[in-house]
This record gives sequence, structure tokens and C-alpha cells, in this order.
Amino acid sequence: MRDASTQSERQIPDADAAPDIVEAFLGTAHRVDIAAWLADLPRRTALEYLSAMGLDERTEVFSFMPLNAQVDFATAIAPSELAQIVTVMDADDRADLFNELDEDLQNRLMRHLAQFEREDIRRLAGYAEATAGAIMTTEYATLRADMTAQQAITELRRAAPEKETIYRSYVLDDGRRLIGSVRLHELILAPAESLIGTIMNDAPVSVRLDSSQEEVANTIARYDLLVLPVLDNEGRLMGIVTHDDAMDAMQEETTEDYQRISSVLPFTESLRDAGIAVLYSRRVVWLVLLIFGNLFSGAGIAYFEETILAYVALVFFLPLLIDSSGNAGSQSATLMVRALATGEVTLHDWRNLILRELMIAGALGATMAIIVYPLGVWRGGYDVALVIALTMFLVVLVGSMVGMSLPFLLSRLKLDPATASGPLVTTIADAAGVIVYFSIATSLLAL
Amino acid sequence: MRDASTQSERQIPDADAAPDIVEAFLGTAHRVDIAAWLADLPRRTALEYLSAMGLDERTEVFSFMPLNAQVDFATAIAPSELAQIVTVMDADDRADLFNELDEDLQNRLMRHLAQFEREDIRRLAGYAEATAGAIMTTEYATLRADMTAQQAITELRRAAPEKETIYRSYVLDDGRRLIGSVRLHELILAPAESLIGTIMNDAPVSVRLDSSQEEVANTIARYDLLVLPVLDNEGRLMGIVTHDDAMDAMQEETTEDYQRISSVLPFTESLRDAGIAVLYSRRVVWLVLLIFGNLFSGAGIAYFEETILAYVALVFFLPLLIDSSGNAGSQSATLMVRALATGEVTLHDWRNLILRELMIAGALGATMAIIVYPLGVWRGGYDVALVIALTMFLVVLVGSMVGMSLPFLLSRLKLDPATASGPLVTTIADAAGVIVYFSIATSLLAL
Repeated sequence: MRDASTQSERQIPDADAAPDIVEAFLGTAHRVDIAAWLADLPRRTALEYLSAMGLDERTEVFSFMPLNAQVDFATAIAPSELAQIVTVMDADDRADLFNELDEDLQNRLMRHLAQFEREDIRRLAGYAEATAGAIMTTEYATLRADMTAQQAITELRRAAPEKETIYRSYVLDDGRRLIGSVRLHELILAPAESLIGTIMNDAPVSVRLDSSQEEVANTIARYDLLVLPVLDNEGRLMGIVTHDDAMDAMQEETTEDYQRISSVLPFTESLRDAGIAVLYSRRVVWLVLLIFGNLFSGAGIAYFEETILAYVALVFFLPLLIDSSGNAGSQSATLMVRALATGEVTLHDWRNLILRELMIAGALGATMAIIVYPLGVWRGGYDVALVIALTMFLVVLVGSMVGMSLPFLLSRLKLDPATASGPLVTTIADAAGVIVYFSIATSLLAL
Repeated sequence: MRDASTQSERQIPDADAAPDIVEAFLGTAHRVDIAAWLADLPRRTALEYLSAMGLDERTEVFSFMPLNAQVDFATAIAPSELAQIVTVMDADDRADLFNELDEDLQNRLMRHLAQFEREDIRRLAGYAEATAGAIMTTEYATLRADMTAQQAITELRRAAPEKETIYRSYVLDDGRRLIGSVRLHELILAPAESLIGTIMNDAPVSVRLDSSQEEVANTIARYDLLVLPVLDNEGRLMGIVTHDDAMDAMQEETTEDYQRISSVLPFTESLRDAGIAVLYSRRVVWLVLLIFGNLFSGAGIAYFEETILAYVALVFFLPLLIDSSGNAGSQSATLMVRALATGEVTLHDWRNLILRELMIAGALGATMAIIVYPLGVWRGGYDVALVIALTMFLVVLVGSMVGMSLPFLLSRLKLDPATASGPLVTTIADAAGVIVYFSIATSLLAL
């Protein structure tokens, strides 16, 4: 690994930088930074730089590029050259790339690979996206319980270059079931002749092949793990997820939650690189659906036309009231979406939390009612002020309740709790707000 | 480390579980789970369980508890007992705890600690919150360039028990400046007599003491690091941040961004444990501030009272139009807040992205205008429909532009880009929407 400066000090050359600046950059920069720089260059230029590197550097730089750039390059080079790179790549990275190639290129690539790599790719590429199976790697180190510490170290020394990590090795029984694990420094500190079976730790925390990558990331974070083993239903070790891949998965899940919560359909491109068509299509769906949700508010207003014509001052406060309800609702919804995502709150906590929410929302609604009352007096007199204060109290209550409950409901319906919860809450709160507002107005103002 | 089941299978006993169930749980569960269980029990009961454990287990379980529970226990036990635990705790964890204790307890605790721990705590506790200095630990392993691999392994074997990680050791010159690093498996694979200076890697990626924890987490994620060294301004090694602490920092930063973006002032308690007073006080501030923001919309409506009385059908579409504008705006704002948080987009990208946003927002606005036009015809006739379609196009455009730009503006003003950006966008978009709407109506309907 070569020198690299801190993130804020990183110097990436411009597209038209002088050759000596580029050379200095290529000679000193971290491969992650080189990959990011190449991915932004015209593909043809980037390919020239890539071809000039040795196989090891080329593979590493290639692996660090975003998937869409990897696919472009994979398509541009000869399948035999691609096969060289793919053979050296980490098992999880190459399975991800494989899944993105078109079928024709997949087949041509496979013909150039050895049987071991072919089977490994096919197995890893077969797991459902965003599960433990899909993000794990098969390059883990295993030991047997009847080895001595000395034998184990010799074995790891031999196997190390091909393994993702040898800091933790897994002890398997004859049926490949996971029975324990050993850390590298425990091996080194142990007397040479001690048996692995006596120095190993009990079977470590693990996940299943079909566990979500969110669960994988939360488990690694909760237990401060370096590596998390992935088992099949019989308890056999099928792969490992390393801390760095878990961190990537966590970032990916969080970004997806951000997209969902703001009613954008998830997309995997980086925001900087996503095209107009992608962003348009991901954003338009919920915006249009929410139009129809908003018709309820419109219908509510139409129903109360008489009231509005008699007291037009009521309209002044309409945006304020429905926005306040929406704001209180998104507060509750957003906090809950996050707590559900980290596993801090689970589905059955709804009943424990609803009473607290009712009290908080009541206090918030009362505060806001007190503040809007004088504004109501000023704009529309005491009667209007009373209507507005009462409405404010109720809509903040309703908005908060809806906001807190919607993520649970979505989760219950097997949808991601983040799904459009912000705007959905606003739309529901709006419709409820309009009806509450004008109903109170109609009855209190004796229309 | 003992056995633990996968996250979803985790079995935590109820508060009133039978003694044998509790005993089985304490005997088999992971210490993280035991800590979570104890933190939920009445403090007095939990303290009894804690006191029954050996010092090592007690310290580890104690370290895994949330800070507020740690403080409660620290206050309840004798300072000498607390000192025992604190001496064994990881350097970063005990500095965090120290910062939360009241001054009196801090002093009493310090009197029971050895000089080394006292100085270490004072140094670590002094760094600003949420910086590299505050989350780093001082328990790293160091080597000199003139050692042999054999000597280095012996040195690590000796030092290992006190170090947070020996998987990567740092090579320092005589001035404690970081000149390189060695991975444990490189040491093991190297010939016994080779010098560290020849097998070490160049100085690794590092951060400064005052780098934000967000930058720390992003750097660890970007370069797939296990450990990140923290340097002072002279390039001297002051501490390390490990992958697990970086992951915690990332979760903490994300949770804080979620709070900010929904206009909740940041709080550190978990959502499940936060009290009514905390949640009320964190939520009420922006809700009230936004009331005053909304007065602009009200004033806009008041100004156009005549128009409204003449065409009351315009009011039906008010929630639809201002919500659509707000929804499009929060989409842009939320995507941008996330991209700024991960470092994918930086402050100077605004100029490159604004044109793309203009085109996307134009396409979205046009789509929505086409959809609302027939609704307008149905409710208010062709003239009203034209007003509504035109307004829709413009407010989606304005909402998106404001939404995209606000996070950059906040960042420029040295505020967190997430700060209330969702509701602020909605409020600004509302006021703009009202004015656009009724201005168009007044001129097109020839009032």
C-alpha cells in the first residue's frame, strides 16, 4: 500500500493535467484514489493507463472502481484479459461484476476461467441481492480441531495469499459445520504444541445465507466484529463477510433509506454520476402518486366551500396548519425509520412507544396552539383564533400519530419502513388537517 | 467470547423471567447482549448481577452498556471499585465515560487511579467531541525500523494484551513521527532476520486530531481500513481509530443526520430510551420556528384575498400545489444531504449539478403539469386548469432548485447541510408557491 494523504488533503489531477502531474499522482496515490480518478476519465484514456499497469495493480485498481465503470472496461477488453483480472479479484467483487455483465459476455468470460473460479462465481452470483450470501466471500481460512497451534500457523502461512483475512480462522468439523474460531494473535501467543480444539473460542456470532445485508451490518456493528461467518441452514460455513464490506453495505443501505424516505425509488448509481433519465424516472413515480393522495385534501376543501367563502381568513392559516402537522409527522416518522433500520426498535415496540408519542405530541400541539392563538386573533378575531388553536393542537397530534405508526405499518406489510414515509405522512396529515380544520370552523363559527 | 445466536434469533429474558432462564442466558449469551439486558433492568438488580461477575467480564459488560447506564452505575459503586473497572477499560471508552461524570466523581475517581491512567484519560478526554481525537484510542502497537521481524514478533507478543489491535503495528522514527506500518501476517510471513525498515509499508492513510468523526468513518470506508492512525500537526502518532469505532461513529453521524433533516435537534439517547422531556425539547424548537416561516405563505394568501373570493376553486388546489413543490424539493434536498455526508459530492460541485437539476426538475414539472391539467378542467374550467398547470410546472422547478441548493448553502454557512433541510425547503417552497400561484391566477384570469 502506498502513501496517501488525509481525505481533505487529497489531490486529484484535473482531466487536462500535465503528464508529469499525472505521473506523480500515479506513483504516489492510494489505489482507491487512482481508481476514482480513472473512473472519471474518458473510458479510452483510462483504459490506456489501466493496460500499462502490472496485473496485481490493475486488478486492485479495477476492483476499487464503481461497478458501472468496471462493466464498461470489461466490455472493452478481450475476454482472456478480463479472465486474468477476474481470476485475481476477490471472490465477492468478481461475483458482483459477473452479475452486471450481459449474458453473452458472461459466457465468453466463463470459457476463459479455470473450473474452480467458474464454480465459485456461479455459486456466489446466485444469491439474492443485498443478502449475506451476495456480499460474502468464500476466501476464508479454516482449521481442524486436532491441529496443533504450530501446524495451524504453517497452514495459514501457506494459505494466506489467497485468503481475504487470516486474522480469524474458522474451525470446522468433518461435516464442515462451524464449531469454533481462533484469532491469529491467539495462535501466536499459544504454546506451539497446544491443540486448536483446546484454544479455540466457541462458535462465534453468525448469520444465515438469506439474512439481509442490513442485518449483517448491524450484527457486525453490534458485536464489534472483524469478520462475520455466514452459515447455511445445516450450520455449515458457506462464507464470511468482512468489516469493510459490512461498512459498504451499511452505507448502501443508509443511502437507499434516504432515497426511500424522500419518496425516490432506490437507485445504485452515485448521485454525482446518475443521468437525467435515471433521476427523472426514480423521482417521478411517487410525485405523481402523491398528486392523487392530495386530491383528498382538495375534495375536503371543496366540501367546505361555504365556510371558506364566509371566512376567507381561514385560508390564510391553511398552509401553516397543514405544514405544522406534516412537520410534526415527519419528525416522528424519520426518527422511527432510523430506529427500525438500526434494530434499536423492533416491530413489537409500537405498543410501548405509542403512549409516549401521544404525550409528546400533546405537549407539542399545546405549545403550538398557544403560539398561533394571538396570530389568529390578529388576523381573524377571537372566534377564528379559537378554531385555529384547536385545529393546531389536533393536527399536530394526528400528524405525529400517523408519522410514528406508518413506518411500523409499512414494515408489517413487508415493505421497507422508509418507503416514502415522509411525503406519505404529509399527504395523510394534510387531508386529515383540512377535514379537522373546516369541521371545527363550521361548527364553532356556527355556519 | 461465548456463543451467540444470529440477530433475529437472539433471546433476551423478560424482566420477570425465572432464575434458571436468567442463569442460562448469563452463561451462554454474548457480553453485548448481557449488557443490553442489564441496561434495561432496574439499576439495583443490574448492579447485583454486575457485582457477581469477575473483573474482566464485569469490565467488558460495563463497556458495552449505553453511556447513560454506565454513568448510573459509576455513581452507585465505590470510587475504588470504579477505578478497578476504569483501569481495565479501553482507553477510548473510559475517556468517554469520564467526560459524562460530574466533577466531584471525576476527582474522586482520579485519586484512585495510577498516574499512567490519569494522564491518559485527561489527554483523551480533552479533545473536542466527535473529532478523531475524541474517538481514538492510545492502545496501539509501535515498532522501530531497526528491529528484526523476530524481535518485532517478540515485542508484540509481550505487548499484545494491552493493545486494541496488533494486526497492524506502526513504525515510528525517533521523533515519534509515523514513517510506516506492518501487518501482523506480513511479520509472520517475513524471514525472521529481515529488518522492519525493509518490510514495512510506506506511511499509511491518516487523519489529524481535529478531523471530524464523519471524515474518519468515510476514510476508513473508502480505503477499506482496519485501523486509521491519527497524527498531530507535526506528523506524530497520537492514537488510532479502529474499524468498529468507525462503524459506531458512522451510525451515530447517520442518526444525527436523520434527526437534523427532520428538524429535530440532535440528541444522543437511543430513541427507545429517550424521555418525553428530551424528545419534546428537541422537537419543539424547529416546529415553532417554522410557524413563523409559514406566516409568509399566510401573508401571500391575504394579499390575494380578492382573487380567492372570485375563484374559490383555486383553494381546492392549494394543498396539492404546495405539497408537490415541497415533495420535489425534499427529494432534491435529501439526496444532496446524503451525498454531501458520504463525501461523494463536495461544496464546489454545486455549479456542475445545478444545470442537471434544472433539466430534471423541468421534466418532472412538465409531467406533473400535464397530469393536473385535466383535474383543473374538471374542477374549475379551462382558465383555472391553465393556471394550475403553469403553477405546477413552476413550483416543482422552484422547489427542486431550493431543495438542491439549500444543503450547499447551509454547508457554506458552516452549518450541517442536514439542518432542518426537509421542512425548511417545504416552508420556502410553500411561500414561493403561494405567490407564484396567485400571481399567475390574478394575471391570467384578468382580475
